[in-house]
Amino acid sequence: MISETYKAMLGGKSVIRELSEFATARGKEIGYDNVFDYSLGNPSVPVPQAFNDKVIELLNTMSSMEVHGYSPSLGIPSVKEKIAASLNRRFGMNYAGKDIFMASGAAGALAHAFRLVTGPGDEILTFAPFFPEYHPYVDLTGARLKVVPANTADFQINFDAFVDMLTPSVHAVLINTPNNPSGAVYSEQTLTRLAAILTEKEEQFGHEIWLISDEPYREIVFDGKTAPYASRFYPRTLSCYSFSKSLSLPGERIGYLAVNPACGVSDMLVNMAGQISRGIGHNCPSSVIQLAVADTCDLTADLSVYETNMNILCDELTSLGFDIVRPGGTFYMFPKAPEADAVAFCRKALKYDLVLVPSDTFGVGGYFRIAYCINTQKVQRSLEAFRRMMHAEY
Amino acid sequence: MISETYKAMLGGKSVIRELSEFATARGKEIGYDNVFDYSLGNPSVPVPQAFNDKVIELLNTMSSMEVHGYSPSLGIPSVKEKIAASLNRRFGMNYAGKDIFMASGAAGALAHAFRLVTGPGDEILTFAPFFPEYHPYVDLTGARLKVVPANTADFQINFDAFVDMLTPSVHAVLINTPNNPSGAVYSEQTLTRLAAILTEKEEQFGHEIWLISDEPYREIVFDGKTAPYASRFYPRTLSCYSFSKSLSLPGERIGYLAVNPACGVSDMLVNMAGQISRGIGHNCPSSVIQLAVADTCDLTADLSVYETNMNILCDELTSLGFDIVRPGGTFYMFPKAPEADAVAFCRKALKYDLVLVPSDTFGVGGYFRIAYCINTQKVQRSLEAFRRMMHAEY
Repeated sequence: MISETYKAMLGGKSVIRELSEFATARGKEIGYDNVFDYSLGNPSVPVPQAFNDKVIELLNTMSSMEVHGYSPSLGIPSVKEKIAASLNRRFGMNYAGKDIFMASGAAGALAHAFRLVTGPGDEILTFAPFFPEYHPYVDLTGARLKVVPANTADFQINFDAFVDMLTPSVHAVLINTPNNPSGAVYSEQTLTRLAAILTEKEEQFGHEIWLISDEPYREIVFDGKTAPYASRFYPRTLSCYSFSKSLSLPGERIGYLAVNPACGVSDMLVNMAGQISRGIGHNCPSSVIQLAVADTCDLTADLSVYETNMNILCDELTSLGFDIVRPGGTFYMFPKAPEADAVAFCRKALKYDLVLVPSDTFGVGGYFRIAYCINTQKVQRSLEAFRRMMHAEY
Repeated sequence: MISETYKAMLGGKSVIRELSEFATARGKEIGYDNVFDYSLGNPSVPVPQAFNDKVIELLNTMSSMEVHGYSPSLGIPSVKEKIAASLNRRFGMNYAGKDIFMASGAAGALAHAFRLVTGPGDEILTFAPFFPEYHPYVDLTGARLKVVPANTADFQINFDAFVDMLTPSVHAVLINTPNNPSGAVYSEQTLTRLAAILTEKEEQFGHEIWLISDEPYREIVFDGKTAPYASRFYPRTLSCYSFSKSLSLPGERIGYLAVNPACGVSDMLVNMAGQISRGIGHNCPSSVIQLAVADTCDLTADLSVYETNMNILCDELTSLGFDIVRPGGTFYMFPKAPEADAVAFCRKALKYDLVLVPSDTFGVGGYFRIAYCINTQKVQRSLEAFRRMMHAEY
């Protein structure tokens, strides 16, 4: 019989999708260039030329059976080794190739991670504000996602609320740093304290608590800084990575799950991920894409536009009176709305052709998200719209 | 906690994998060219040059954001339209682009199909001999796979056994034509009778029974014939296709689910497939690979080598006394072993460096599978090994 579970999901329309459809429709009226569409988190810079060059070289020089052949179910060994070496060099880790499982982007890595360390009924804690897709991602595994209220002072962790919610039913904690939608980068202090609490509670509960770290924005960090690498702080960490943002190729669906070998069971977990794949119909990312990222995993697209845009918007919006925690990375910021009802505020913004996402969908009221992965000229042109709105409406 | 479900799966080692490991090890001793490795169903002919040319053209001419950008969750509309048009032209169907869901190969399509029309505890019937991966594919959805005994006369359907097993608990029937491992192609007569039984039982049971058709070998059919297209015989058909074999690119993980619009709910099912993706971490196949197959979906690699190999082997093995149902397609054949214990027979074959797969893993005893997707010269050299074995052992 047709599944009631998935049928029931058809009703729900995502706010972000509705806004993006508004932007497209409005674009047809006045030209998309005149719609300041800050709704979608899509990379807006080209892939590094070296990536395309590598794909073309592979197609022109390798035998068809090698370049288009089946990847082993855990990923191509040479690719996994290059990724492990890159992580070790950059973050002082001790990965071997066998600790890496190639996945279809971070979504694929998360699908494996949740199934590895939780079962039906188990709780996974995450922190507001959070990526709303975590709900279907987790719910459809049978586990339950619970959301710790935000620390709106700096969008680090609200530790008091966290400790209250960290009961024996919790088997995994899901973090996202640099964060969508706040742009916050968890500090070393935050990660140290998080790890200490997890370690203490593991002992108290008599069972493991796994840290699942979703880090597709790891390479988009401002002021010349580097995002502290979560796995370095806690051995039972499953790092879920996507090259979508760093290499600007979200459509190629390439990423990985990296299991910290210090957990002592990384071999088993990576092999179990291969078993999970059989049930969910994943049989590795594209071979040619795996081979090409292995060669370009230390590169990034020119990500500087995101920092440029952040600075322009942060300065102007602050001077217009917005209360903003300055993002440490990503291509998002999360200002406080000038009225308590963020939906009403974002509706008003549409009158000025500003497409902003109200914060309710991210698990916190009264804020809004700006996805500033658009070109800088358009960001600059949008400032006048923000000014007009603030003068007219508030 | 670490999942007991997936941990428990680690013990089981596939017979095919063990044989393939033997072949690799033996190859190191005597040269892989001297091991007649008939164990693995990997395409052995190159991708059509037009596919590689198209990828290179896309990379060189399209904007990075277009070619590497996110695909909509149901697939790129222009790609879906081209595939629908190709199926309509070739098989007299009435698909529109919206009836097609782009998937990561047939495994990805099947993962969506099972979840669309069955739930935990529902039964799915399939027919021996069958692809052994169907077990984890189905079991991990919570549904139950039951296997109808083989019709060894011609490897069409054993209808008596089928009707006995077709109880009200059955919500889907899974077929694979052309078939791995038998090479049988279901005739129009078989599909007509199957459809009539399903229609009758639907009425009797008062619920739908869906036909899930796994057809990665659809384009490998011998004697200039075409495989009858299952969906044309029964409206509630979900066709699961992979380009792995037709275009010889199993590593690119590209295929689709095609929902027969005559079922009346194809819109809903394709949209539900998009919801399923959120839970299993699938977010479309690679964009550049989608775009390239759209342009080459009417082509195939040069598949003639498979028919050449089949004829050589079929003639020689028949003359050596083997009982073989001549395959109508695929790159497999499934002769009867000259002793009841197929495992013992295949063990003997290893002494002659013939790597054959005993049939038990495919749900029937006393046969063996030959995967003749290797080069023709090697097939010819293997004949002497078959001769020596038969003279010495039987």
